Amino acid sequence: MRSKSQMKLFALNSNVPLAQEISEKLEVPLGESSVVRFSDGEIQIRIEESVRGTDVYLIQTTSQPVNENLMELLIMIDAMKRASARTINVVIPYYGYARQDRKARAREPITAKLIADLLEKSGVSRVITLDMHAPQIEGFFNIPVDQLQGIPILADYYKEKNLDDVVVVAPATSGLSRTRKMANYLDAPIAFIDNRKAHPDSDEVMNVVGSIEGKNAIIVDDMIDTGKTITLAAKALVENGVRDIYACGTHAVLSDPAVTEIDSSPIKELVVTNSILLPENKKIEKITSLSVAPLFADALLRVQHEDSVSVLFD
Amino acid sequence: MRSKSQMKLFALNSNVPLAQEISEKLEVPLGESSVVRFSDGEIQIRIEESVRGTDVYLIQTTSQPVNENLMELLIMIDAMKRASARTINVVIPYYGYARQDRKARAREPITAKLIADLLEKSGVSRVITLDMHAPQIEGFFNIPVDQLQGIPILADYYKEKNLDDVVVVAPATSGLSRTRKMANYLDAPIAFIDNRKAHPDSDEVMNVVGSIEGKNAIIVDDMIDTGKTITLAAKALVENGVRDIYACGTHAVLSDPAVTEIDSSPIKELVVTNSILLPENKKIEKITSLSVAPLFADALLRVQHEDSVSVLFD
Amino acid sequence: MRSKSQMKLFALNSNVPLAQEISEKLEVPLGESSVVRFSDGEIQIRIEESVRGTDVYLIQTTSQPVNENLMELLIMIDAMKRASARTINVVIPYYGYARQDRKARAREPITAKLIADLLEKSGVSRVITLDMHAPQIEGFFNIPVDQLQGIPILADYYKEKNLDDVVVVAPATSGLSRTRKMANYLDAPIAFIDNRKAHPDSDEVMNVVGSIEGKNAIIVDDMIDTGKTITLAAKALVENGVRDIYACGTHAVLSDPAVTEIDSSPIKELVVTNSILLPENKKIEKITSLSVAPLFADALLRVQHEDSVSVLFD
Amino acid sequence: MRSKSQMKLFALNSNVPLAQEISEKLEVPLGESSVVRFSDGEIQIRIEESVRGTDVYLIQTTSQPVNENLMELLIMIDAMKRASARTINVVIPYYGYARQDRKARAREPITAKLIADLLEKSGVSRVITLDMHAPQIEGFFNIPVDQLQGIPILADYYKEKNLDDVVVVAPATSGLSRTRKMANYLDAPIAFIDNRKAHPDSDEVMNVVGSIEGKNAIIVDDMIDTGKTITLAAKALVENGVRDIYACGTHAVLSDPAVTEIDSSPIKELVVTNSILLPENKKIEKITSLSVAPLFADALLRVQHEDSVSVLFD
Amino acid sequence: MRSKSQMKLFALNSNVPLAQEISEKLEVPLGESSVVRFSDGEIQIRIEESVRGTDVYLIQTTSQPVNENLMELLIMIDAMKRASARTINVVIPYYGYARQDRKARAREPITAKLIADLLEKSGVSRVITLDMHAPQIEGFFNIPVDQLQGIPILADYYKEKNLDDVVVVAPATSGLSRTRKMANYLDAPIAFIDNRKAHPDSDEVMNVVGSIEGKNAIIVDDMIDTGKTITLAAKALVENGVRDIYACGTHAVLSDPAVTEIDSSPIKELVVTNSILLPENKKIEKITSLSVAPLFADALLRVQHEDSVSVLFD
Amino acid sequence: MRSKSQMKLFALNSNVPLAQEISEKLEVPLGESSVVRFSDGEIQIRIEESVRGTDVYLIQTTSQPVNENLMELLIMIDAMKRASARTINVVIPYYGYARQDRKARAREPITAKLIADLLEKSGVSRVITLDMHAPQIEGFFNIPVDQLQGIPILADYYKEKNLDDVVVVAPATSGLSRTRKMANYLDAPIAFIDNRKAHPDSDEVMNVVGSIEGKNAIIVDDMIDTGKTITLAAKALVENGVRDIYACGTHAVLSDPAVTEIDSSPIKELVVTNSILLPENKKIEKITSLSVAPLFADALLRVQHEDSVSVLFD
Repeated sequence: MRSKSQMKLFALNSNVPLAQEISEKLEVPLGESSVVRFSDGEIQIRIEESVRGTDVYLIQTTSQPVNENLMELLIMIDAMKRASARTINVVIPYYGYARQDRKARAREPITAKLIADLLEKSGVSRVITLDMHAPQIEGFFNIPVDQLQGIPILADYYKEKNLDDVVVVAPATSGLSRTRKMANYLDAPIAFIDNRKAHPDSDEVMNVVGSIEGKNAIIVDDMIDTGKTITLAAKALVENGVRDIYACGTHAVLSDPAVTEIDSSPIKELVVTNSILLPENKKIEKITSLSVAPLFADALLRVQHEDSVSVLFD
Repeated sequence: MRSKSQMKLFALNSNVPLAQEISEKLEVPLGESSVVRFSDGEIQIRIEESVRGTDVYLIQTTSQPVNENLMELLIMIDAMKRASARTINVVIPYYGYARQDRKARAREPITAKLIADLLEKSGVSRVITLDMHAPQIEGFFNIPVDQLQGIPILADYYKEKNLDDVVVVAPATSGLSRTRKMANYLDAPIAFIDNRKAHPDSDEVMNVVGSIEGKNAIIVDDMIDTGKTITLAAKALVENGVRDIYACGTHAVLSDPAVTEIDSSPIKELVVTNSILLPENKKIEKITSLSVAPLFADALLRVQHEDSVSVLFD
Repeated sequence: MRSKSQMKLFALNSNVPLAQEISEKLEVPLGESSVVRFSDGEIQIRIEESVRGTDVYLIQTTSQPVNENLMELLIMIDAMKRASARTINVVIPYYGYARQDRKARAREPITAKLIADLLEKSGVSRVITLDMHAPQIEGFFNIPVDQLQGIPILADYYKEKNLDDVVVVAPATSGLSRTRKMANYLDAPIAFIDNRKAHPDSDEVMNVVGSIEGKNAIIVDDMIDTGKTITLAAKALVENGVRDIYACGTHAVLSDPAVTEIDSSPIKELVVTNSILLPENKKIEKITSLSVAPLFADALLRVQHEDSVSVLFD
Repeated sequence: MRSKSQMKLFALNSNVPLAQEISEKLEVPLGESSVVRFSDGEIQIRIEESVRGTDVYLIQTTSQPVNENLMELLIMIDAMKRASARTINVVIPYYGYARQDRKARAREPITAKLIADLLEKSGVSRVITLDMHAPQIEGFFNIPVDQLQGIPILADYYKEKNLDDVVVVAPATSGLSRTRKMANYLDAPIAFIDNRKAHPDSDEVMNVVGSIEGKNAIIVDDMIDTGKTITLAAKALVENGVRDIYACGTHAVLSDPAVTEIDSSPIKELVVTNSILLPENKKIEKITSLSVAPLFADALLRVQHEDSVSVLFD
Repeated sequence: MRSKSQMKLFALNSNVPLAQEISEKLEVPLGESSVVRFSDGEIQIRIEESVRGTDVYLIQTTSQPVNENLMELLIMIDAMKRASARTINVVIPYYGYARQDRKARAREPITAKLIADLLEKSGVSRVITLDMHAPQIEGFFNIPVDQLQGIPILADYYKEKNLDDVVVVAPATSGLSRTRKMANYLDAPIAFIDNRKAHPDSDEVMNVVGSIEGKNAIIVDDMIDTGKTITLAAKALVENGVRDIYACGTHAVLSDPAVTEIDSSPIKELVVTNSILLPENKKIEKITSLSVAPLFADALLRVQHEDSVSVLFD
Repeated sequence: MRSKSQMKLFALNSNVPLAQEISEKLEVPLGESSVVRFSDGEIQIRIEESVRGTDVYLIQTTSQPVNENLMELLIMIDAMKRASARTINVVIPYYGYARQDRKARAREPITAKLIADLLEKSGVSRVITLDMHAPQIEGFFNIPVDQLQGIPILADYYKEKNLDDVVVVAPATSGLSRTRKMANYLDAPIAFIDNRKAHPDSDEVMNVVGSIEGKNAIIVDDMIDTGKTITLAAKALVENGVRDIYACGTHAVLSDPAVTEIDSSPIKELVVTNSILLPENKKIEKITSLSVAPLFADALLRVQHEDSVSVLFD
């Protein structure tokens, strides 16, 4: 059996606090390395300790700046491969480019697949991630992928809140299975927002499909990007007589002007996780962040000990 | 430019009538070949004409018996590759195993990806298909995929029917974007069926989410397999006061006892396409089959002439 | 060294009794899994225990229904790979499609190679098999292949029988080296049957080449398929004054009407192995089946312990 | 269609006269190039004309010195690939290492497969060859292989000779299908030599199996290496009362002391082809060499014009 | 032959003016496409015209921001591949990360190789580039690479200047073959700067090796990055009695504070090319930029017409 | 951790004394195997002991006869892979074809890359080598390469010699970084020889660039091939008033007439290593050979124990 002593953790630049938290939970120190920039912007990797014959875990979320973060990861993998690591496990709490998982129009790339190909080509042995936008992305890989789930963490939070008369709402016509899953945890009905245009030229109309009047609504999404989807949904819910509005999403992308929009929206509270590092200027009272470090620490130890990971979510 | 004279069509065993219809539309004869079985069940391929330097198009739908049909296709591809075809284009009107496109539980295969890998390994140059269960499956391939769409054909049929007060219904919490698309063609609202259990032990309850009372409902799915999904949905719609119920789906899988169930259900008419060959004993009055041969013929000619295929659906 | 405790055996559907026998010899239980069919014929795999970091051995013979059995195996391999098995060893007692190992005519596939490619692409680490039709098939793989031999088992049986004045007969102009090998074990001369046509239009004439008059003949083949080859050979031997006729072959393909033909032929006894499961209706008195389970159990343990396998046959 | 003007022929060092003869038949000049040695034995390639976008045909037989000839070929392929040739077709009249096509003992390489892998890795598009030792070697490749046949050329020679009462003899227990093929052309019966040892310690005994007394024997092999096989066979035939002995083989490997042995043997004439260059000191009266240049020229033109090659031998 | 009409040029974001200049020289318009950013920084590609069956040329220099530019290129390649382009040719005037072409210390990546792998994996058919830092980088690719040369353009400029008594100087102990090449064009002697430390702790001493007193020195490098190398070299030359100092380099990386340093240095003029776009704030009087657009236009046309490219520099 | 007991060493034919010396230092015996030639020149491999699950180290230098030595290595790798070795580590003290690491002229191969590809394709896990001609060759591999360094061994020898007033000389305009490295060890200045032609037709002139008058010169090269480079350099040094001339190079290629030339040159002593076996007839008094066996033994043990190898040279 593989032991914890053969395990080495390395943090890249995108979410160092999360890596530190995982390291503490695991009681495995972060490896000595640096990822800096030369004056012309090229990435310079330094690994300051031997990794021969060890199982390395590289922790890098591929949020903004996504291209920089990806290249850091690919180059680090190359360095680890050439330095004779036994296995190279990449921990990607937020898998960027996941929404580019199909050709929505002619001549589009399928970037989520391309990223998978680039990772495999570089020499990755395994991917450990959380709530990829579409479950099919696991199939873009030919190596094992351990995909953890954020819904249980978010659901636990709401269970403790003990809201009554809840309806779980999908803010669009996609993602209903995620909504259904949350609703199962909370034993609640579901509704969704149907964005419809009367004519191609006319404005979009937000119809609430399902019964929400007088209820506490929890809007569920996998990632909160510009916030437009959930704030528009919230507006539609208000117009249809909802009581209070809560929202949650695993990944806090929060591109501008998400934070401003959410702050001024009827949403009472937005719950996210720290899969993406929340910068100081985006920490507002309305946003609650839950840590996924215990979940990742548990998963990494199971991977290293070759125990079942599925017990964490099945 | 590549000419029609360099194009060779070959029909495998799963859906010869469709292949013949495509051949007639294209005015390109089906190539001389046979795919038979030895007495021990092994597949024997004979290609009776030279294919050197030609662009071959192999027409094979991977419906039941799916494993036989897949192996026929893979072996034919191997033969074509070794016989020096310039390009090998496979035409798969119904892509079997598409629902196994992700790990729904621990230790499941992702068979839809495996099939893609097997096809590429055998030597395919291009895949031409129709309404794959999930659009992400295109990303399972590293070769060009032309994915045609069945919704416009089905929508045209309903437009001619000229039903009033229509609501388009998704029979489950998945596939809402398909439903939304059909609704756009028909300028109609949407609803969906939410299957929910009060407790893990209790029965599933079919809730209709959205307004359907007194309306003509069109249930939309990508494939009709056992028919259970749409007949249960129809039952729920009746209980909630719908007017007439129509149903449609691109792929007529129709596993037993689908035909019996549909025949005795409140569904007035089921519209499908001939992507899968409908055997005589499944041809009942309630089932209307539309041909996708003109669509495929058009697409194949565009592929051969290197014209845009996206104009067919964008 | 790898231990027996890290070894997991899984039986697929084609030859469960053989798998059970191997499991008993090894004192390693068969893993919990099921391979069933959905109503539309698609294969559904369930692996009910963790296989992370273990060495799995999948036992599946690829006899009739060969395409179903192959697809079961490929899909199971994909599931095992994604479930993080350390090595995936496939045990294929009878390797189907082995006779399609070359292009006998223009534009034929080389299906035996294709199968090797599909297995490797799916993620196999090693193949353990028995008497492949041509020894070159090992070269179709780029992974280690352990090929066991059936001739010693068959020869031991005849040695115990203690026949006098034996001649070993090849029933066609191929397979003489196999015949020579059996003859070496029995210290006997060899003969063969030469199928010759005077003119392309005239009937085939079966000439016995070599001296067989008054001798006990043992016809040797690697597989007995329709039985036509050995029954015609037997007829020719009778016409040329042979004493008794015995026949043997490792693999009991026995496609119809093999059993009837053999039963009514001058062959006194046909000896085969259980590399292919003999169904009840094919168990006739004339057919003796020897078990290869001890041989496979021995080989699997050697593979797991990383001991030499060649000592089993060199 | 691809034209002859896009075709470029290059001769490497192993058999320049054959390349020249093919070039003359095709009326396509040999390309300007040189393959020489640096003083340390490393191969230096010079291609003195542009090959961009052309279909190049590299003519190299891999006879002795086989390793030098192979490396010349691999390096030339690399140069052609980097020089942007459209397709790289290698013409290998004699495919060396073909007898290492399987593991005859434990821990042997399968060098014939390795060579195929090396050729493919280097960038070959197609292989055109003649009488590979085993037909399965074609399956070692994943690219198209055109395998030409020498038996018709040799048979034509004997037909013109018009020998009466012929028996075609295989000099060992392998290669009987080749013998059967020649016998079909000549409408003759077959026999073979069975090499058998009474005990592992005793001498090999050469038994003639089949009727040869008073007949004209033609010994058929695919290659004549040390000549030991055919001269021992000839001795056995003489001892069993044969009339005259002829021998033939496509490939004149003729390792020492083959020529001396054959010259002093009872064989009247040995017929070979020029697939391997016969050096002056091996040209003795008893050895007749037939040219395969017309066959190759015909095949190359068909490949270039994308016409069927199988018409040459089916 | 492939015609100019099948050629499509696309400019990505890094050096649009160069792409436009190449397009004008070729009289082939730039294709309709856009490469923009979503609000979360992910790249969005739009190709607004069909590219089926065409030969596309993607023009993207991988200078700062190198990671953004690389990801743009990789994603565009994926889109082009899936859109059925016949060949995908990438034009990379400046190949970033080229200095990371070997492991200078333990556990370093070889990023220049990684980039090559990523490009090939994405689907590139050919690379057209200019003065890669090390000629070995061509060998990192398995596809054809056309590497153009900047020295002739720079040398022509100096020939017209008609300086007398020239010495060509390498500013470090690497790059002497580049220096020798320039010296050959100008028929001049060479010298170099040897950076040496007396002790590891002491300062570096710049020794001028070779005779430069009273001469006009031309410092030659392949890229000018921070400018430190050439300005220190210039200082050493002044201290050793040189007359005037000129400097040149193909690639104007010019990371801060290069421009300021050069402006205040004894270098009279720095000559570069437009392989990298020179931003307005870096255009100072001392810096002369020569265009490589005519060279690339010529090369692209030769590639498309399958004419020799080597005539441009051999 | 991997133990020394799982380590197996095998010597191929090129440098058996070095392999024996490494074996003795490691106290690990050379494995039982033979690499011989069949009469037609084909290589025959025999591995006489099981290698299942072991870490094998194949020691083969690829000096003259380079093509024979390479093919021996590739075939042995294939045999080891098929014999189920756990890892296959190749020890190549001198990496032949390293000078063909780039296209110096149009349509040249990049043979050093081809060799890397062939090794990887055959199944190598790791390469352990010494002073490859260009450090970029490491990047030709996608597997770990441990490159040892000869300069420290050579420098130690000169340090012990204790020469005064030393100048280290590069015999050409390449290899200055190697020269600089040696100079750092000896705390000495450097110079180089500039080969220049006044006109293309005129003779080459050897200019000494740098100050060498009255000094002890040590000419440094990575390999000594024909010896022409260093003997011409020595002549130029003498003409410019040098005191004594020493020369060194890691690899003693010594193609004819190197030994004669060196013997009659003004070079006082040539120091090389035993990376290439020095045949008896090349052992002259002027040539001193240092052993790299201790260095390799140390490196192999570190690889096997998964300890850092870089500590040997960083």
